[in-house]
Amino acid sequence: MSTLVTGIGELTTQDPELGVLHDAALVVDGERITWVGPAASAPAADARIDVEGRAVVPGFVDSHAHLVFDGDRADEFAARMAGERYDGGGIARTVEATRAAPDGSLRALLAGRVAEMRAQGTTTVEIKSGYGLTVAEEVRALRLAAEVTPETTFLGAHVVPAGTTPDEYVDLVTGEMLAACAPHARWIDVFCEPASPHAFDGEQARAVLEAGRAAGLGLRVHGNQLGPGPGVGLAVELGAASVDHCTYLSGDDVDALADGRTVATLLPGVEFSTRSPYPDARRLLDAGVTVALATDCNPGTCASSSIPFMIALAVREMGLTPAEALWAATAGGAQALRRTDIGVITPGSRADLTVLDAPSHLHLAYRPGVPLARALF
Amino acid sequence: MSTLVTGIGELTTQDPELGVLHDAALVVDGERITWVGPAASAPAADARIDVEGRAVVPGFVDSHAHLVFDGDRADEFAARMAGERYDGGGIARTVEATRAAPDGSLRALLAGRVAEMRAQGTTTVEIKSGYGLTVAEEVRALRLAAEVTPETTFLGAHVVPAGTTPDEYVDLVTGEMLAACAPHARWIDVFCEPASPHAFDGEQARAVLEAGRAAGLGLRVHGNQLGPGPGVGLAVELGAASVDHCTYLSGDDVDALADGRTVATLLPGVEFSTRSPYPDARRLLDAGVTVALATDCNPGTCASSSIPFMIALAVREMGLTPAEALWAATAGGAQALRRTDIGVITPGSRADLTVLDAPSHLHLAYRPGVPLARALF
Repeated sequence: MSTLVTGIGELTTQDPELGVLHDAALVVDGERITWVGPAASAPAADARIDVEGRAVVPGFVDSHAHLVFDGDRADEFAARMAGERYDGGGIARTVEATRAAPDGSLRALLAGRVAEMRAQGTTTVEIKSGYGLTVAEEVRALRLAAEVTPETTFLGAHVVPAGTTPDEYVDLVTGEMLAACAPHARWIDVFCEPASPHAFDGEQARAVLEAGRAAGLGLRVHGNQLGPGPGVGLAVELGAASVDHCTYLSGDDVDALADGRTVATLLPGVEFSTRSPYPDARRLLDAGVTVALATDCNPGTCASSSIPFMIALAVREMGLTPAEALWAATAGGAQALRRTDIGVITPGSRADLTVLDAPSHLHLAYRPGVPLARALF
Repeated sequence: MSTLVTGIGELTTQDPELGVLHDAALVVDGERITWVGPAASAPAADARIDVEGRAVVPGFVDSHAHLVFDGDRADEFAARMAGERYDGGGIARTVEATRAAPDGSLRALLAGRVAEMRAQGTTTVEIKSGYGLTVAEEVRALRLAAEVTPETTFLGAHVVPAGTTPDEYVDLVTGEMLAACAPHARWIDVFCEPASPHAFDGEQARAVLEAGRAAGLGLRVHGNQLGPGPGVGLAVELGAASVDHCTYLSGDDVDALADGRTVATLLPGVEFSTRSPYPDARRLLDAGVTVALATDCNPGTCASSSIPFMIALAVREMGLTPAEALWAATAGGAQALRRTDIGVITPGSRADLTVLDAPSHLHLAYRPGVPLARALF
């Protein structure tokens, strides 16, 4: 069945040839867009939705989220706002609560989070494991994640769990755990952060990523969040799809990103919620680096699931224009997931559309905190 | 008809004797709360609402908003983010668009904004005129505002309109315009800002406020937003209920606020949306000043209608605890409006309740941008 969506006041296609259209319409047939153009020349369709002058943008692509967890760490957030420092240690609390949760409650929590994201305009979300840290628990997290998204990421190497050494744990992650998890994941990821006593250094991260690649997984990296480090360089060297955080970058890191095809995924909600300095997004854009914007939605460092909030932060705190921020949260997120069928509105792309209660995409940054965006279908 | 609201996981009453209750309930009869206490000892009622463990807080009191306007200034926001400076000059654009709008469209726009606020947990909003700047247009704005709130504020002295001198305009505001507007307003307000070429200096502001007081209106002041100035001192001297913005304060200003009974209303959405330094809220709190938090929702300097967003900014950027920020946006807002029946949940207070999709008020700051709050009735 085809549906005509018309009355689009502003249509940001993210297709370089189509650009931004006004008084536009589009046709959806099944899961795909089949036509985009001026409302006046729209073809007939079986059904019709009039969005009455509202702006339409590609559904947001949230390419970095940790949604399979139980437990609340709002108290840790409040303590941090009162001056306590973040070093990744709180993850252990979530691991404990998540392991204790039955499948049914984890599934319900996950479904609630995905629904909350859709209600805010996110139509694709990448979901990481990483709060299990045993073979069985990591497999469970990925099985649950796979029920709601194709973009599943094995993050056994999130932190080193208590009672094991880093080297022992890397052996487990790259051995038995990887073998059990790979069938349920598209990606592998590692928290490469020598500045954290809980995370992994460059050599450990390399071992994880190379093992993941050998098992057929695409590569992602948490890098350079808490201080300078080898994460970005390693990600580019190994051809990772994305390196995420990028808060502390050297000139060599920027050059490597500019020369490689690894996307720099910025997560400004983390800087907001940990009161940290924001990454220098303009330096990356000016160097020609592809930048994506995601939430990092997780119980510790950023409990926000709101891409509009990230867009507002990107404009206020990182100097992106509203159009650049929107691009990063749609087409940029798609590139960070090596997808060409999402993050864009063009004939053949997925019918993932987000409608704004606003005449223009500018309102995503102009009206921070206001729930303007929702997924259309 | 009485309604029992039960299953309240956390009830922030803002009543010093009741404090914060867990596993609580309350009874509403008509427009008033008649009982507050432990869920286990709740009395019978005609109807029952179970909020299933959610947190309940007093409905937010937004004591500073400009909601009677037409026209979009998102382009000005984008230009400002790209480096242009704010000096109050853009208000003239909104004046032009508002004057051109028929009553019906202004009424619909206003109703939409009030509904948007309620959907985000705001149950009381103060609404200013100030985009008319002629006798007839200011009266029209106040008549429309009075249809949706008792907290109407005559802000003829918003900016000096084109084609008149400041002194001529102050004569009009304090004479014919005040006489026509006073019957429709509870408050008078003035944009006292010598740093702006469009606003009013200390002597002009004093003339406006004294005339308003003589006409029976309560006093409010926009002060010290763009630079140091006489606004705060004047507000305290004249016994204003609130002085709003307070971005640039001298030691004398802080002392005056601490000794007086004028509330300092902070509007961090303005600093967010104009990329300005945030007011030093901790200095005010530490000096014993009563602090309120409001949106300033307006088309120029802060188009956000979200009190939860202001709470998140107050915590991140101004060092308030989540509890202090919530107090400022409820009980603080009520004090800024000299109201004792709102901003608090206690027997006898208005049944203005906001429920959070969260177990605790901490989530308002912990989950920025996520639409967690909604007015219950």
